[in-house]
Amino acid sequence: MIKNKIEVCFTPAVYHTFHNNEAIVIVVDILRATSAICTAFMNGVKKIIPVATLEEAKTYKKNGYLVAAERDGVVRDFADFGNSPYNFTYDKINNKEIVYSTTNGTNTIMMARKSHQVLIGSYLNFSALVNHIIKSQRDIIILCAGWKEKFNLEDTLFAGALAEEVLKSNFYESICDSTLASIDLWNVANKDLITYIDKVAQRNRLKINGLDDVIEYCHTFDLTDKIPLLFKDYLVTI
Amino acid sequence: MIKNKIEVCFTPAVYHTFHNNEAIVIVVDILRATSAICTAFMNGVKKIIPVATLEEAKTYKKNGYLVAAERDGVVRDFADFGNSPYNFTYDKINNKEIVYSTTNGTNTIMMARKSHQVLIGSYLNFSALVNHIIKSQRDIIILCAGWKEKFNLEDTLFAGALAEEVLKSNFYESICDSTLASIDLWNVANKDLITYIDKVAQRNRLKINGLDDVIEYCHTFDLTDKIPLLFKDYLVTI
Repeated sequence: MIKNKIEVCFTPAVYHTFHNNEAIVIVVDILRATSAICTAFMNGVKKIIPVATLEEAKTYKKNGYLVAAERDGVVRDFADFGNSPYNFTYDKINNKEIVYSTTNGTNTIMMARKSHQVLIGSYLNFSALVNHIIKSQRDIIILCAGWKEKFNLEDTLFAGALAEEVLKSNFYESICDSTLASIDLWNVANKDLITYIDKVAQRNRLKINGLDDVIEYCHTFDLTDKIPLLFKDYLVTI
Repeated sequence: MIKNKIEVCFTPAVYHTFHNNEAIVIVVDILRATSAICTAFMNGVKKIIPVATLEEAKTYKKNGYLVAAERDGVVRDFADFGNSPYNFTYDKINNKEIVYSTTNGTNTIMMARKSHQVLIGSYLNFSALVNHIIKSQRDIIILCAGWKEKFNLEDTLFAGALAEEVLKSNFYESICDSTLASIDLWNVANKDLITYIDKVAQRNRLKINGLDDVIEYCHTFDLTDKIPLLFKDYLVTI
């Protein structure tokens, strides 16, 4: 039986060492971009257009789009939303198209566009992702958005949870150190995930800005079976 | 009291996001470059000249230097040694100058040259390093050589061991996720370090080439109090 690889890329800064045209790339930015994107599709958004710069986001805004834009966790004044998943409620976004620019998330999504498929991962769509990956029988790269090119724990823990689950299938194997490390860290943290997340740098950054009310929500398994997918230059669902 | 930072940089590919002119950088390549370098100084080498390319190493060889050079763990045919620490015995290297080029180690050492001080770290000089760091009261960057720009576990475990020990001193604090992750991984692994290292990718690479006889040696604490230090373009000891 052909065995596929699962690799974890801790930061977009080293994605070039992982890139593989034939792989499925799962982009992860748990606090908060990919949790927010999954929430948006759960609540019926039709399309999300990720843009890298605030200038692009502003241009879309002038052209009448709903715009989500934050930097360092803080919503920009011209925007309709920041990237709290609580913003993306059914009444605001159902059947809408929105434009989205975040500190780490957007660039990371666009970076992987030349792979076979780019998916958006979070705890919220965990089991749906696992099933999709196992059915695909392709190499998997879990691409953590990190924090300003650096490693972060909350994305790595998710990568460990996902890798551990997928590796239970016979189609996958792993000898990659970053996958092993992610799984070990997940097994340290998952005994009491929220307490563990408490010591994480991004939680502290969110706390300073009063934005840490989403921690438990962003670590809730399986609220939706929607998997956001990059199609051309925008996100839709499978 | 001023608190200093300890950060762990998992791969040279992201060193630019950590660089700090005032910091002490500890370069780590446990299997095998920095273990070999510490062994060489323990056995009386006078000076080690790190060179990045095999061409430079060849030029030094023609000029009569002893040369250590490997790529992917395998000694190059023109060289006197590879990077097994067992090569660097007292009778061969005492009071000599040697030139050294390895897959990941050499470039990593030279990359950090603009910081306050570049030191070579391994389990072999662990306690000497801890004491030196605490006395310095400076910011510390533990720079893992990794494997071809990727994360590796054996360097990360050492970083965790070192960070945990140094953080017992009042001069240091840490909120950096990579430091927290390294310490957690160290605490998973150190219950049975050699068994844990068995699952590590670099061990497998060494095994394929029959070079895994150094694993236990490279994980032995405190064989020497010599700390190799980059001075101008070469290594000496403090």
